[in-house]
Order: sequence, then C-alpha cells, then structure tokens
Amino acid sequence: MDKFLRVDVGHLTAVHEPVAEKYRKVGGRSLIAKLLLDEVKPTCEPLGKHNRLILATGLLAGTGVSCASRISIGGKSPLTGGIKESNSGGISVDQLARLGIKAVIIEGAPQDWHLLRITSEGCSFLPAGEYLGMETYALCEALLKRFPKAAITCIGPAGEKQYLSAGVCHTDIDGKPGRLSARGGLGAVMGAKKIKVIVIEGKGPVPLADAEKFKETRKAYTKLLMDAPSSKAYRDFGTAAMVQKVNAMGGLPTNNFSHGRFDRADDISAEAMVDRIQKRDGEGRTTHQCMPGCVIGCSNVYPDIHGKTIVSPLEYETIGLLGSNLGIGDLDVIAKVAYLCNDMGIDTIEVGAAIGVAMEAGIARFGDSEAVFRILEEMKQGTVLGRVIASGAMITGKVFGVLNVPAVKGQAMAAYDPRAIKGLGVTYATSAMGADHTAGHTARAPVDHLDPNIQAALSLKAQKSMTIVDCTGLCVFTMGAIGARLDLVLDLLNARYGWDLDMGWFERMGIETLKDEYRFNELAGFNRAHHRLSEAFTERELPEVKSVFDVSDEDIDKLLRYP
Amino acid sequence: MDKFLRVDVGHLTAVHEPVAEKYRKVGGRSLIAKLLLDEVKPTCEPLGKHNRLILATGLLAGTGVSCASRISIGGKSPLTGGIKESNSGGISVDQLARLGIKAVIIEGAPQDWHLLRITSEGCSFLPAGEYLGMETYALCEALLKRFPKAAITCIGPAGEKQYLSAGVCHTDIDGKPGRLSARGGLGAVMGAKKIKVIVIEGKGPVPLADAEKFKETRKAYTKLLMDAPSSKAYRDFGTAAMVQKVNAMGGLPTNNFSHGRFDRADDISAEAMVDRIQKRDGEGRTTHQCMPGCVIGCSNVYPDIHGKTIVSPLEYETIGLLGSNLGIGDLDVIAKVAYLCNDMGIDTIEVGAAIGVAMEAGIARFGDSEAVFRILEEMKQGTVLGRVIASGAMITGKVFGVLNVPAVKGQAMAAYDPRAIKGLGVTYATSAMGADHTAGHTARAPVDHLDPNIQAALSLKAQKSMTIVDCTGLCVFTMGAIGARLDLVLDLLNARYGWDLDMGWFERMGIETLKDEYRFNELAGFNRAHHRLSEAFTERELPEVKSVFDVSDEDIDKLLRYP
Repeated sequence: MDKFLRVDVGHLTAVHEPVAEKYRKVGGRSLIAKLLLDEVKPTCEPLGKHNRLILATGLLAGTGVSCASRISIGGKSPLTGGIKESNSGGISVDQLARLGIKAVIIEGAPQDWHLLRITSEGCSFLPAGEYLGMETYALCEALLKRFPKAAITCIGPAGEKQYLSAGVCHTDIDGKPGRLSARGGLGAVMGAKKIKVIVIEGKGPVPLADAEKFKETRKAYTKLLMDAPSSKAYRDFGTAAMVQKVNAMGGLPTNNFSHGRFDRADDISAEAMVDRIQKRDGEGRTTHQCMPGCVIGCSNVYPDIHGKTIVSPLEYETIGLLGSNLGIGDLDVIAKVAYLCNDMGIDTIEVGAAIGVAMEAGIARFGDSEAVFRILEEMKQGTVLGRVIASGAMITGKVFGVLNVPAVKGQAMAAYDPRAIKGLGVTYATSAMGADHTAGHTARAPVDHLDPNIQAALSLKAQKSMTIVDCTGLCVFTMGAIGARLDLVLDLLNARYGWDLDMGWFERMGIETLKDEYRFNELAGFNRAHHRLSEAFTERELPEVKSVFDVSDEDIDKLLRYP
Repeated sequence: MDKFLRVDVGHLTAVHEPVAEKYRKVGGRSLIAKLLLDEVKPTCEPLGKHNRLILATGLLAGTGVSCASRISIGGKSPLTGGIKESNSGGISVDQLARLGIKAVIIEGAPQDWHLLRITSEGCSFLPAGEYLGMETYALCEALLKRFPKAAITCIGPAGEKQYLSAGVCHTDIDGKPGRLSARGGLGAVMGAKKIKVIVIEGKGPVPLADAEKFKETRKAYTKLLMDAPSSKAYRDFGTAAMVQKVNAMGGLPTNNFSHGRFDRADDISAEAMVDRIQKRDGEGRTTHQCMPGCVIGCSNVYPDIHGKTIVSPLEYETIGLLGSNLGIGDLDVIAKVAYLCNDMGIDTIEVGAAIGVAMEAGIARFGDSEAVFRILEEMKQGTVLGRVIASGAMITGKVFGVLNVPAVKGQAMAAYDPRAIKGLGVTYATSAMGADHTAGHTARAPVDHLDPNIQAALSLKAQKSMTIVDCTGLCVFTMGAIGARLDLVLDLLNARYGWDLDMGWFERMGIETLKDEYRFNELAGFNRAHHRLSEAFTERELPEVKSVFDVSDEDIDKLLRYP
C-alpha cells in the first residue's frame, strides 16, 4: 500500500500520490486523524467544500489475515462537528489494499453526481444519474451486474439527502450492502461530495517483505483465533449475545433509556434469534462472514417465516436501540426496520435513539412498531418529521423539548446505559468521536461496573486497545483471542513491511492517535465541558441499578489530560 | 436597591437577601454575568433545575432618569448553550427598583405553574392555571384588570412550550406586552421554571445619597438628551430609519442573507412607515415611549387602514428579518407578523432568520406572506414544522440541510449583513451572546465598513460602550447624546449611591463584564473556534458589496485575548 488516491470532485481529477513518511506506519483511524489534522480546517463546514472524505485501509488490509480488513471512513462529522472515524466490515478495503492504495482522499466542491470507479488501471468518474435516489440493496444488485467482481461502497437516499445520521454502506461477501460505517453522518459528507458509489476492483496479493515469516505467523494467529472460546461465542450467537448480558446488568436501554431492563428481553435475545433462524431454515444463517477469510463469522442472516432473508446482519446495537429502547420486543420487526435503515443508508443507533426521544415526546407510543415504520417512511420521503429524526437524537430532543437525550457531543449513545456500565459512560464522555461504544468497550471486563472509582482507568485502557485494532484494520472481536498475544500482530506488521517495530509501538501509536483526535476537536471548538454526560444521566437514577453516572469530573479530566 | 429577591420555585419560597459587596457596584448585564458565574454550573442543562432566571435592574433604575430603566433578563441560554443577557424596555424594572430590589433570582425545579406577585409586602406564589396557554396581549389585559397598576413580565405560549427562541415579554406604559427580552430563548427558561407571569407592583422613590446633586445632574442630562439631533432622529423615525441606511450600505438582509439590497426597501422604510401612520391616523403614533419619562420616544404605534393598532412598536430588526429577509415588502404584513410573534412571546429576529432558512430549503417561496402566517400558526399549534422553526435558524438549517445559516453560536444574526458592515460581523463572532447587534453596534460609525483592518478595534470599542448602558440600565439610544458626556452618568451614579467612582470605572467595569461572560462561556464549552463566522459569510460573496467577511482570525483572536 504505497500510495494515496486523491480525488478532487470539483475538477474531476484522481491522482496517485506517494505516501509521505509520516503517514507510512499508521493506518485506518490513526491515519485519518493525521490526514484530517494536516488537511482539513477544523472549523470548516462539514458539508462544505473544505471537508474531506477519507477511506483508509488498516495496516494489515488485503494480506489474507483473518478479520484484518475493516474499513475506516473518516472526515469532520456533520453530526458532532468533531473528528470522525467510522469503522465497518465488508470487502471494500480488501480490494482497495490489493490495488496498493493506502487511502482514498475525496475533496473539493462537486458540480454533478458521479460514480467513482477504482481499478488497477486508475480511477474514473462515471455518470451516476441512473443510480440517484436508489436504495442500497437495489443499487448494489444493479452495480454488481455491471461490475461483477467489485466491492461497492455507496450511500443510500439518506446520504444523498445529507441527513446528519447517514452512513456509508459497504458490500459483504454476498454483495449485500449491510455493512455500514454508520456513525457520525459520514454518509452525508459523501453526499456532499456527490459521490453516490465507489466501485473498487482489486485483486492479487499485496507485497510481503518477509513472506515466509508472515505466513508462519499468520498460521499461528489463525489457529489461536479459531480455537479461542471468545470466537466460538461470537460464532454461535454474534453480538446479540449482549442482550441477555446487558439486560442482566441492568443497562439495556429501554423506553428511551428510562429503564435498564426490558420485560421482553428474552424475545429479542441471541437465543431467541438463533432459535428462529434454525427453525425457519431457508436462507437463515446463525454464522456468516462480513469479510473474506474471517474465521470467527459473528455475522448472521435473519430470515422471515418463509426462510427468506429479512436482513443480514442483525446485531446487538440495532436490537438495543430499535428494540428495547423503543419498547419493541419482536425480532421480526427489528430486523425489518434494520433492513429499511440499511436500505436507506442510515445509522440504526442514531435513528433508534432519535425515535426513542420522539416517543418520549409523545410522537408515538413506546412499543408501537407501526409508528416506527411510518417514521421510517417519512424519513424516506423527507417530510419534516422524517428530517428531524434523521438529524439525530440531540436535534430531535431540542425540537421536541425532551431533555432526556442519550447523546454526547451530538451523537447518540450505543446500547449500553452509562449508569449501569460506567466505563462505557467514561468512553462516551471522553471519546473525541461522541458516544461510541467502539471507542473503548468495557462491558465485558470482569469488574464491578457500578463502582465509579475504577472506570476511568478501565475506559482509557479500552480506548488505547481500540486504537490497535482501528489502526491495523483488525476486527475488535479478535481481541478475546489475541489481546494477550499482540506479539503476533507485531510480527505480522514487521514481516509485511520489513519494519522493526517493538511492543511499545502499540502504546505509543495509541496515545498519539488519541492526542491527534483531541487536537482536531480542540481546534474545532471542543473543550473539557464537552467531556460530560448530561443531567439525564448524572442526576436521573436508573431504577434497575439504583445509580446515576457518578464517575467524577476529576477522574474524567485526568484521563486524557485535555487539552 | 439593597436586596436580592431569591425565588425557589421548587420549595415555593421567596426571600430577600442582602446584596454582597461584590455585587453592589454592578447592575443589569454585568450583575448577571457575576451571578451566573457564581451560582450556575456552566455545563448545566439550560432548561433543567440548575439554571437560574435572573431579572436584574440597572444601576440607575427607578430614579426617574430618562431612558434608564431597561431590564436585563439573564440565564444560561438554551439556544446558544452560553451566557445570556437579554435587554428590553418596558416598565418592569422601574417598579422593581422602587421596591428596593436589585435583582430577582429564580431557581429550582418546579412542580406546578405559578404567577409570581412581587409587592412592597413581599412575594407570593399565586396559581397560574387560568392563565396557562394564553397569548400575551389577552393575558396582560386580564392581569391588568386584576392588578391595575402593576408592571407585567410574562411568557406567551412559546415560553410555555419552551421553544428555544421564546422571549420574556414586558408591558410598556400602555400596558401592552410589546417589549421583549427576546433573544437567546430565556422565555423557555422562564417556562422551565413554570412561572407564567411576574406581577410587579412598586412605587415611591428610590433613595438618593445626594438628592440635590442628583437632580441637578439629571436636569443637565435630560436637556442634553432632548436637544441632541440623534434623539430627534429616533423620535421622528425610530429604529426603522436603518432600513434605508443599511440598504444603501448593501447590508440589508434579503432572501435569507443572499442579497444586501431589497428592491422594495422603499416600501418598508421608516419614511413609508411614518407616512402610513400619519395618513391612517387613529391610534397610530410616530413617537411613543416604552419606559416612563423617556424623552426620546423612539417607539411607535403602527395602525391598520382603519386606524386600529396592529402592533407597537414596529422596529428595524423585525422589518429586516421578517420583511426583506423573507422577500416581504409590505409593512402591514410585517406588523401583523410582529404582533403574532409578540403575542406568542417569541423573538422576531430568530423566527425571521429561521423562516428565511426554511424558505431557502423550499418550504415556502420568498415573498409568500401567506406561508409566513401559516408557519406562525404551526408554531402556535406546536406542529413539527412549527417546532423546528421555533428552535431557531441553526436547527432549521440542520434539519433542512441548508448551509447558509445566518447564526453564530447558535443564535441568529440581527438585520445587518456582516459582509457589508464588518464591525458588526466582529461583534457577532466575538460576543459571548451569539450574533447580537446590541452587543456592540458599529453601523453608525463614520468609517469604511468594508475595510477589514479597522473593524476589530471598532467592535471592541462598541462592545465596551454597550457594557456601560447594559450595566447602568440606560437605553443605547442615549449614547448619541451623552456618549461624550459620560461624566454626567458618573455623577448620577455617585449622587445616587454616595460612591466616588472615577471615569476609569467605565472601562474597568466593561472589561470585567466581557471577561466574566467569556469565562462562563469557556466553562460552558466555548473556545476560539466559536469566534468565527461560517463559510456562508467568509466565502460567499455578498453581491451588492462584492465582498465576503474578511476580518482576519488573528484580529478577532487578538480582540479579546480569548480565553
């Protein structure tokens, strides 16, 4: 991966650039932080001409290492006004890496909509007219007829309309666009650049500096991953395993985060999901890969009663935000709503949180699934209500006068109530990204999640750990297996590139990434006042755990020594 | 004015407190800044229990000095998230001062709605049930039957609904609630405290330390004010005189700030207004007082064709934002819309700017006055569109995907395009209040308003000058007469209180006030990134002046040495 592809949508140019030394040893999220700091004015309008949309590969992308081809999409977020990296599975990065492209940097002020096609012969702008307005599933089906072997990264109507919660969608190994870089509204940035689709056609191997060492290490890595109990758990139940776990912890968002346990949790649990998939048979799959060569297979295919696919995958965050958070206890409904969100190209977390806020305002009753379908239709049509919801939880709260808004820095919380799982509360508060669970997940740690005094350290450790996976392109679900064997990752990196990184590199790179992100946000207008949860969480007790979020401001401020 | 009245709406207590030394020599806006810094957590939820609503008197309130009884309403703004002082005429402060009350501090989390009655016998909570939902004109008419001599400070339906652009309304000398502390959504804070009405019944003189000196100085002050050409201009044409002036400068907001001259400016000018008032006769008045004893009388009463009052007053900002900015060139329409806004208790500037943004989004056509009436009706009904508009220009822009939003720190600009009157652009950018023209008005200065190099100094001077009027309770329109004779104001203060302030006090107090406000905002989450105008103004040329807002970031940052 020896080059950047720089795309100017104003001048319709696309040129390959050598990768400057300072960017060589970082990938994914870490690379995005450096590029944004260097190239994007932090105070710029996120949907204006000065923002950039970056597709970055992780350092191990395209090497055939299992779970190592996550894609990082980056830019200044129109939802938070801060830095954003939004991570996803799918096959796009694998093919990008095989073209030798470390990152695609899309910039400028466009005139017309285009489809961007990136192949070994270069990058071309094709007219996008025929695809405009298309939902993502039909779009990708049409595109794969035209470009049969391509990976597709695209936006749906939500991105075209520049909805603040629009995501960027990527095809999986089945060619379905169910993998979303969902968070932070980067789909709107892609819409603002008037790129409806990026077709990526790459194949062939990536160069390996020490092929023998690489293959030998990859073998050990794969065996470790395959044998790990964590991998089996993900394979059997996927992320949905968290439903029962978090419900037991009293932190499952229920009725707009007013409760932490849902009386129909059993009905939306992984066990119920697996049971349905197995009984319904047909296209359903309890295990499924989002990336080629993944030996975990945490994904799934959720079928209807006739065995026809409703959506793939059906994941915990979606179940939490569009299920329990809305008082909806029917997996079929949740799966259909998830499909509609994917089809529109929009973040299920943000939409679920926003609808929850609207329900608290009385726009609809908790549990009213028909109302949810109506709201989604309004989003599709672009009605005023649809636009409000699509603007995210925070704006929905402001418009409807609801103070109980589960959001930080303008971005909705994931499906972990920070009063029950306080380490995630610290992550929500301190992450430069807004309330991302992926910025530093603590729910699986064997600690007392209600003890406020240990959470800042726990979150910081998790946040640093996440930079490792986000920089290398690894899936976080590898960590249960290889978290204690990072030497293998180091060996893979050194063998891939001919480097001599030492084990201290992980820590140094992690801190540097976090600092780069903070620096961007500081210049964009954030300070320590933004590292706080609202009174809805610091003063309103969560009944199931009889606690508020009470990690001290001092602990939080010390955590990242901001600025 | 030797006491604070502290009202706890949670415990239904109201107690008089002595005024601590540190608060004695400040009033109005300056007092609000100190009280908020001391008592309100800057990161608190503005519509939650930790915010306070403060009614502060200026230092010369109640003394019978002409134009010296402006009211300052303060709190953390739900619109900007920062500090807010919103200034208005009316008679409330005069009566408050005559009760010896320097400020009313309203705090706590209410259960039920109340009417607050403040008299020489104390403060009582009366049930507000019968007044809930009432528009302000009918409300004040009913209240004045019950409390015939009272001054009324109240909120309309907008404040009850906690709309982010809701104002606090005050009765004028005719008992009409047409004087608004309109900006920053403080009406929503009053609504959050569930205080529908504050009835103030105060009479009798305020004590004067040196009555003879005071009266002698007041006489000189009054003569100066009466004789000044500026006073005559305000009396003859009111603030509406700015229509032709700003139109000539190319800075009259037209069609959502896309132009700086309006082809129907003649029809909405002060000359046209005066002509109509005179021809229609009846209740119309070209001059009118908002405060007792005002010798300027810049206000007016605008009648319909039958001579019946439509609204009083009809002012420049309203004409600019609800007129030219919406492409509406009919004063009768603007007057009716202004009346409806007053009746709802909402900021005409914010509403005008928000509707302008919505018109750019295609919600209605520029110039379509029927659509404006429809939108106002929707605001009254609380429909989704009505709520979006009532949430202000910035949120309207986000919901409808419009980037050309005339707002800074979340608050809409007044009726001066910052590309044509760049000193006001600096004020908009740097004021802790958001885009307030009253924070530092430069349009009347005899300078080249397009020269970027002189504007920061000009704005700073104006900003300091405004602290003088906002601290003493003077109307800014006195400055044309007494700006060069501040010794008279100093003599009045010293004679009133027995102080020995020197002329340097004005400068010291001004800087301290600005610094207090910045400090609050810094703690609330603002930094220098918020001292910027958006690309809609720094990069989009205003055709009439062929210029963008190009005062340098360096000049702006130097201006207030933030933080």
